Amino acid sequence: MPETPPARIDAARLQAMMEAVSAFGGGLDGSMTRLALSAEDGAARDWLAAWFTGNGFVPLVDRIGNQFGRLDLAGNNAPVVMVGSHLDSQPNGGCFDGALGVIAACEAIRAVREALAARGQQAACNFIVANWTNEEGARFQPSLLGSSVFTGAAELPWALERLDGNGISVGQALDAIGYAGTDTLRVPDAFIELHIEGGPILEQEGLRVGAFTRYWGATKYRLAFLGRQAHTGPTPMAERRDALLAAAYLIADLKDMAGDYGLDLHTSVGRLEVFPNSPNTVPSEAVLFIELRSGSPGILEEAEAKLKACIAAAGERAGVAAEVRAIDLRPAGAMHPGLVRLAGRAGAGRGVRPRHLDTIGGHDAISLAAVCPSIVLAVPCRNGVMHHPTEFASPEDQAFGTQVLADMLMALATEGLAALDDRGDGR
Amino acid sequence: MPETPPARIDAARLQAMMEAVSAFGGGLDGSMTRLALSAEDGAARDWLAAWFTGNGFVPLVDRIGNQFGRLDLAGNNAPVVMVGSHLDSQPNGGCFDGALGVIAACEAIRAVREALAARGQQAACNFIVANWTNEEGARFQPSLLGSSVFTGAAELPWALERLDGNGISVGQALDAIGYAGTDTLRVPDAFIELHIEGGPILEQEGLRVGAFTRYWGATKYRLAFLGRQAHTGPTPMAERRDALLAAAYLIADLKDMAGDYGLDLHTSVGRLEVFPNSPNTVPSEAVLFIELRSGSPGILEEAEAKLKACIAAAGERAGVAAEVRAIDLRPAGAMHPGLVRLAGRAGAGRGVRPRHLDTIGGHDAISLAAVCPSIVLAVPCRNGVMHHPTEFASPEDQAFGTQVLADMLMALATEGLAALDDRGDGR
Repeated sequence: MPETPPARIDAARLQAMMEAVSAFGGGLDGSMTRLALSAEDGAARDWLAAWFTGNGFVPLVDRIGNQFGRLDLAGNNAPVVMVGSHLDSQPNGGCFDGALGVIAACEAIRAVREALAARGQQAACNFIVANWTNEEGARFQPSLLGSSVFTGAAELPWALERLDGNGISVGQALDAIGYAGTDTLRVPDAFIELHIEGGPILEQEGLRVGAFTRYWGATKYRLAFLGRQAHTGPTPMAERRDALLAAAYLIADLKDMAGDYGLDLHTSVGRLEVFPNSPNTVPSEAVLFIELRSGSPGILEEAEAKLKACIAAAGERAGVAAEVRAIDLRPAGAMHPGLVRLAGRAGAGRGVRPRHLDTIGGHDAISLAAVCPSIVLAVPCRNGVMHHPTEFASPEDQAFGTQVLADMLMALATEGLAALDDRGDGR
Repeated sequence: MPETPPARIDAARLQAMMEAVSAFGGGLDGSMTRLALSAEDGAARDWLAAWFTGNGFVPLVDRIGNQFGRLDLAGNNAPVVMVGSHLDSQPNGGCFDGALGVIAACEAIRAVREALAARGQQAACNFIVANWTNEEGARFQPSLLGSSVFTGAAELPWALERLDGNGISVGQALDAIGYAGTDTLRVPDAFIELHIEGGPILEQEGLRVGAFTRYWGATKYRLAFLGRQAHTGPTPMAERRDALLAAAYLIADLKDMAGDYGLDLHTSVGRLEVFPNSPNTVPSEAVLFIELRSGSPGILEEAEAKLKACIAAAGERAGVAAEVRAIDLRPAGAMHPGLVRLAGRAGAGRGVRPRHLDTIGGHDAISLAAVCPSIVLAVPCRNGVMHHPTEFASPEDQAFGTQVLADMLMALATEGLAALDDRGDGR
């Protein structure tokens, strides 16, 4: 990018921050358990807030606990570019999913500030680092909770009432770690998230960086089968109303359903709650957390109709009732073309062409895409593994992705939002 | 029973005791949650111990927490007749399963003592009320833990190390409620348990009392399917190793297997543990608590062979490994003929013929049957329901069963163990 002064990220500084944040909830085996709003999450947030304060960022927290660090470089009326991801993790997940995006945002913005200061150049925008609340949806459902409240897609009171498996609400959990904030922030002019790919394509193709340019839609059902509690011993088989049996039928049917659509439909039941879950009692209730995902709105619609038929069939076959407790629909869509082009331009400046990818998992950038230009930069991860202790992105790939991110931010800092209109290097 | 003086139980006293004990863990809807060695169980035990002391029984507790109340009527060398059941319950279970047997034992023995005292007659045996630890197997597996340690079928150190779902051991739980005792008791000369039928036969046939004369065998497997944790979004369906999917296949197969044997085989999966059990993570581990039950040793053996084949097939189909973590085998068998005859004689004295029944669920009396004459008297329960808040035995049926029990104990108190040899009224 010859037209802008280079912002050079510091790979050692980036690694030091990744190591520091991984201490909160990290295990010796590379695992990470930093559930949203847990004590570990609170400690990581405190650490990040201290980093903000120590590095000239203004720490802010909104009512759903989204944590921000604002760096004012260009005055109150200048555009705002937000950069970040999330610090929460899956149970027994990995250290890079989410955390890398927050740390890379800190380092990239710091590099931009240093480059501007070295040249005595005025910035054309302000920057905000974001750490979104409960991206994972592991402790509280739905996922993307903080970013959804931020964009208005979810209502704050409803979000605060979401319960974890122990009956603790989001509001209570925020109070417990001191992150029920009062700051209000306006929608930024652009949002950029860096994230591990969470899939194998970049690694398989020997590429160093990608850009998620499209996102899959998801249809999520929380479904209860309701049977009748009885002793597994004397109760005749014909008189049993086994909720878990209905769940088993449906889980098998969902797997078959995905087979009908080749690579275009993913189906899953990741969580199953059984009640009373005693070895010698016929289960009276089984709650399934079902996901259908596709890049095609038509397939998603068709799959949902089939899901409904399968629910009815499984319930009837096991002689139990079915009750849909929640439905969460996320449409498929595309990221902002101007940010896709800017990623291409930044990559070209480093000798690479960012691979265009579909993102199938949720990202906070997908929430933000509904209200502002938004994109996810992807860095390779080993074997495509995510949500597992073996999740791994090499320090070199972390640094390269963070450098491309910094180059994008430098373009925005020197050109302002005009950087999103440039068509010179886009694909 | 003209040859013995009648022991008259007091139905009001029995109901008062049932109401008192139901306060510990009971809900307004008739539910009972008094998990083994929980705070509620501890409170119920304390209440029972106070009743023992207040009524001339010597309170005793052994190392696995089995609680006893000994009534010395006949001197140290006399035979010992033990009577009782268990105070622990299923989660969200009913108030009668177990508790009625303990309370009926107290009332029946009291009635015998009163009858003997009124006539100034010497007893031919001593009595012990028993409250066995962890009969249900809901909090700790296996079930019948206390009675199995008592008979030597299970080792004490192993039993003390059993863990509940929160990683708390039996030993720790005993310490927590103060029921890690030190008393040692010898095997009694007979054991009699009164219990609700837990099935519909007595009610359907309009009968007031039954005797379990045979018990089904059970083969219990704790089985883990081991897959690979991954994100439910991007991970291609073909690359998933979904442990829950294998569990679903097996649950469906087990249901089909029972169908091959008509009424002679019961199969169930009552408990299923999923790890990490997060909505957007492919489950890496699913632990199934499987039961096969039959009155026929041959069918049980055949079913176990089929189970093994089904486990292998389900694992292969889902692409996951299987690991058998525990096997618990309980052979089918018959209760003591002398006690069956004595139950018949006692029933005849009250104008009924106790219906001979099979018991399919486990009972502490089945543990005891391996080491001494043993039997279960059964009283009707509404709709055959057990392990559910609607579990119910009418006060009249409770009293009638307790009266038959007292008549059996009176025969033993006046005739000694010779009462088990009498063939006059048996069937």
